[in-house]
Amino acid sequence: MRNFKMTLQYEGTRFKGWQKQENTDNTIQGKMEALLFRMTGQRVEVQGSGRTDAGVHAFGQVANFHADTKMSAEEIMRYMNDYLPEDIAVISIKEVAERFHSRLNARGKTYCYRVLNTQVPHVFDRRYVHVVGEELDIDAMKSAAEYLVGTHDFKAFTSNKRSRKSTVRTIETIRIEKVESASMELLGVQDEIRFWYSGNGFLYHMVRIMTGTLLEVGMHKRRPEEVAEVLASMCRENAGELVPAKGLTLMEVRY
Amino acid sequence: MRNFKMTLQYEGTRFKGWQKQENTDNTIQGKMEALLFRMTGQRVEVQGSGRTDAGVHAFGQVANFHADTKMSAEEIMRYMNDYLPEDIAVISIKEVAERFHSRLNARGKTYCYRVLNTQVPHVFDRRYVHVVGEELDIDAMKSAAEYLVGTHDFKAFTSNKRSRKSTVRTIETIRIEKVESASMELLGVQDEIRFWYSGNGFLYHMVRIMTGTLLEVGMHKRRPEEVAEVLASMCRENAGELVPAKGLTLMEVRY
Repeated sequence: MRNFKMTLQYEGTRFKGWQKQENTDNTIQGKMEALLFRMTGQRVEVQGSGRTDAGVHAFGQVANFHADTKMSAEEIMRYMNDYLPEDIAVISIKEVAERFHSRLNARGKTYCYRVLNTQVPHVFDRRYVHVVGEELDIDAMKSAAEYLVGTHDFKAFTSNKRSRKSTVRTIETIRIEKVESASMELLGVQDEIRFWYSGNGFLYHMVRIMTGTLLEVGMHKRRPEEVAEVLASMCRENAGELVPAKGLTLMEVRY
Repeated sequence: MRNFKMTLQYEGTRFKGWQKQENTDNTIQGKMEALLFRMTGQRVEVQGSGRTDAGVHAFGQVANFHADTKMSAEEIMRYMNDYLPEDIAVISIKEVAERFHSRLNARGKTYCYRVLNTQVPHVFDRRYVHVVGEELDIDAMKSAAEYLVGTHDFKAFTSNKRSRKSTVRTIETIRIEKVESASMELLGVQDEIRFWYSGNGFLYHMVRIMTGTLLEVGMHKRRPEEVAEVLASMCRENAGELVPAKGLTLMEVRY
């Protein structure tokens, strides 16, 4: 059996997330597996580096699958892109060692959460950004983010209450940047703030709850130091709001 | 009668252009006028700075309308944004002198045409960019663009053959820039090239034909100097292809 590693992009808007489900085929994994069955005649399991939730996008999701095929990697990529809907694309594919596993071998991931800080409606990136009207104190958010960097028990920052697995994770970096673009300057109405998170793994809803908490600091509803207390409390209720899925994109998976 | 000047954004994808038509209400102007009728009970004509074609977007279209209303500009803006579909937005509105006319008073406009120079499918900005797989020589395109800047008869660069109006226009600047973005670097697969055109007015299809011609120079199908010959020929057949509407955005109207 040959093993292929793919890098995928998708707009999550109309999908029920990555993971296939019995009652719907409207998942990324489901779409990929149906297509590979059509291509190979075999039941192929597509293993993602991790699940993305309904509405979350991917700029560089990684997945692998084993298949008996004589097709080259290039031929498979072309075939898949010919049949995939326009909101999913295979942007690279290569044959890898049989033991490669996209989830188990992942060393780290980077997510980006996009916030548009504006009072007026926004048309163009409306499917990819979360709009916040309140003024945001970027320096306060940067200070608060420092408490999250490092190895911590992130139990307060996940919606998954029942799991008995470890909730300890390591965040390598959090970068908060204000994006300047010519088109924004032109009208001077919109500021985009991007939250970049890199770490060895993220719990269910973790990036969205961290972002929601940082935004509350940015609105001066919390002091930056409170983030340390939230972490220590291990209690979800103490953390901030879960921000919408559409602002979140899985940017990269590192091996 | 009070006169209101609005700045509008819209994604052109699903509309049949700016100008209202008898057989469809699926135009930007048609949507705006229907909404203002609902708001004021009056037949209000919304005058745009110019038409945009089906599929063309606007980041900063300007329009004005006269109405008898006691509402403030802010109230009108809020009302309109509450009822407009999510692909149209009023991003600013103010009361202006009665004689202000968004088309007749316009001194200049800026358009941006976005090209994604990539071999792989593109998911995120697929509604806003034209994808070109061939390698593009940016320096050659910049040299070619210099022949277009200035006051010329652009008859070769319009699809409108029957009009007997002047086809002389002045292009103030053409800027061709390669956009660098963190997310593109991350995967290293996509280069975006933006063509910015500023001028006192543009003929039907002019920006899209100029861009198509410059792209042919970028692919080395034409020499930069040929652009001067195309201009002088006054003949549409000598210019390049009309590139797709979806890459084009009206960025700004100057008064």
